[in-house]
Amino acid sequence: MKKLINKKENIVKEMIDGMIKAFPNSIESVKDLPIIVRKEKKNKKVALISGGGSGHEPAHAGFVGYGMLDAAVAGEIFTSPSADKVYEAIKAVDSGAGVLLIIKNYSGDVMNFEMAAEMAEMEGIKVGKVIVDDDIAVENSTYTVGRRGIAGTVFVHKILGAAAEAGYSLENLEKLGKVVVENIKTMGMSLKSCMVFTTEKNSFDLAEDEVEIGLGIHGEPGTHREKFVDANTHVDHLLEKILKESKIENEKVAVLINGLGETTLIELFIVNNRVTDILKEKNIIIEKTLVGNYMTSLDMGGFSITILKLNDEIEKLLNAKSDTVALKTF
Amino acid sequence: MKKLINKKENIVKEMIDGMIKAFPNSIESVKDLPIIVRKEKKNKKVALISGGGSGHEPAHAGFVGYGMLDAAVAGEIFTSPSADKVYEAIKAVDSGAGVLLIIKNYSGDVMNFEMAAEMAEMEGIKVGKVIVDDDIAVENSTYTVGRRGIAGTVFVHKILGAAAEAGYSLENLEKLGKVVVENIKTMGMSLKSCMVFTTEKNSFDLAEDEVEIGLGIHGEPGTHREKFVDANTHVDHLLEKILKESKIENEKVAVLINGLGETTLIELFIVNNRVTDILKEKNIIIEKTLVGNYMTSLDMGGFSITILKLNDEIEKLLNAKSDTVALKTF
Repeated sequence: MKKLINKKENIVKEMIDGMIKAFPNSIESVKDLPIIVRKEKKNKKVALISGGGSGHEPAHAGFVGYGMLDAAVAGEIFTSPSADKVYEAIKAVDSGAGVLLIIKNYSGDVMNFEMAAEMAEMEGIKVGKVIVDDDIAVENSTYTVGRRGIAGTVFVHKILGAAAEAGYSLENLEKLGKVVVENIKTMGMSLKSCMVFTTEKNSFDLAEDEVEIGLGIHGEPGTHREKFVDANTHVDHLLEKILKESKIENEKVAVLINGLGETTLIELFIVNNRVTDILKEKNIIIEKTLVGNYMTSLDMGGFSITILKLNDEIEKLLNAKSDTVALKTF
Repeated sequence: MKKLINKKENIVKEMIDGMIKAFPNSIESVKDLPIIVRKEKKNKKVALISGGGSGHEPAHAGFVGYGMLDAAVAGEIFTSPSADKVYEAIKAVDSGAGVLLIIKNYSGDVMNFEMAAEMAEMEGIKVGKVIVDDDIAVENSTYTVGRRGIAGTVFVHKILGAAAEAGYSLENLEKLGKVVVENIKTMGMSLKSCMVFTTEKNSFDLAEDEVEIGLGIHGEPGTHREKFVDANTHVDHLLEKILKESKIENEKVAVLINGLGETTLIELFIVNNRVTDILKEKNIIIEKTLVGNYMTSLDMGGFSITILKLNDEIEKLLNAKSDTVALKTF
């Protein structure tokens, strides 16, 4: 396997070290564990933690910073971080106002993050949680009971991060989190499997002319495979499913066109071109658009479309100032 | 070919349209041509223009915005934009203070940008130029006399963009540009060729266990091929060549670890981990690090390391405020 790694067992550690060395004024690790925290701690604010298996960069460590996350816990590639590590993260960032865990809905993540919450609560730390299940493709999957959490999670980081900076209590963050998650719908599609660095195997096989509709970010199966046609045809189908599910009409939304890794910005902007046209046709008002690699799946080819229904509160928080180490121009 | 495009002849237009629809408050096009300009024009400032063939996104259109470029001109994939289009861009952004062209050193780009400059000068517009040739791998190549311009060009955009906002004259920007270009050295390496969307062919073939050292961003040959070993071994070789060439000792630098497209952030941070360690060992002081996809080569696998030698003036400009549409977190 030709990948820019050294020893397999050091992948996550060297990545975290390389990240901290790139942004030494903004982030640091906790006890040399794969836990990235903000260097500048803020007191009297609910601390936000997310995390999960590695392989989805810049999620989640890239979103640690002002106005988003206080900590991100990284597991091995496509493997949930242990409860112990999440517990260490909770202890590291709690300032007394409590800690909110933002968990993508995978059985391993939910179990480990909840176990960590129990451990912290026994020490008197208040812990809340928001479970993100934005992927409308399938109910129950390889690693999930219910729907999976995918790219829309980034909107949750941003909106709850802004609310935490604004002084929301843990209870109010949990309440807002439920509304935000309810308002986020995502559908993805893959053109090429990813090479899993640790197993040296492709996560699945796909024929030269086929695409997998609704797949998960670890290569879990989607709803079906079909012949590749062209960008617009597939965008139309994905968006139709999202709009049907979210029942959005004449409303304000934010859009995230997320690349899975290998897919070029050329293609993502072509996707956005079509998405924008269709939403305008339907009198849906786009208040914000993000296009790029926000939650990847190693070197997988493909993309997802996320639509977030806005209300005034959510829109204001979405547009609040934030400053994280992910996707920095300068 | 499974790529998220519609008709081949519309790739660049749909990409540009999709980009403008994503950031309608920040950028617009000129006469529906593949020219992206800042929506908010600033008077009495030298305007900066860059561009070149498409396929290197977010370069260059992504770097249009406050503190960087005023316009970017996009050619077809891996094809220089015509002199006519560059001329239209010059006319669109000149405010009377003159226009500076930042040109990557490829024969086609140099010819077309210089021809456009002559056309504009005949109409009384002052035009200056900076030619970027940061790639130390080879002298003269498939499309180039002299050295090629690659990822280091992004540093030129930023530093000269900040200087233009600060009121530098066209003459002083040209002078500063020469110093900056002289201070930038880049070396890259490829692990996988890219699929050129228009020809549906890989830009070159590489054996399963081989890497191409010093290749160009259009797949031009580098210095040689060798067996893939591991990240650190190859980083050591590339960096040794850069340091030998740039003769940096006990000085301040900025570092750019640039991904070519398919390569994951995991790998780029692992590369940065090694680069930082080696520079520290040599008492070289890293003032700023960027890690990510700044100048890609479609879906090519690989990366480049750029080292920019700083002085006080350049460092201040590098850290100035900028706000572009590339790589936005929120």
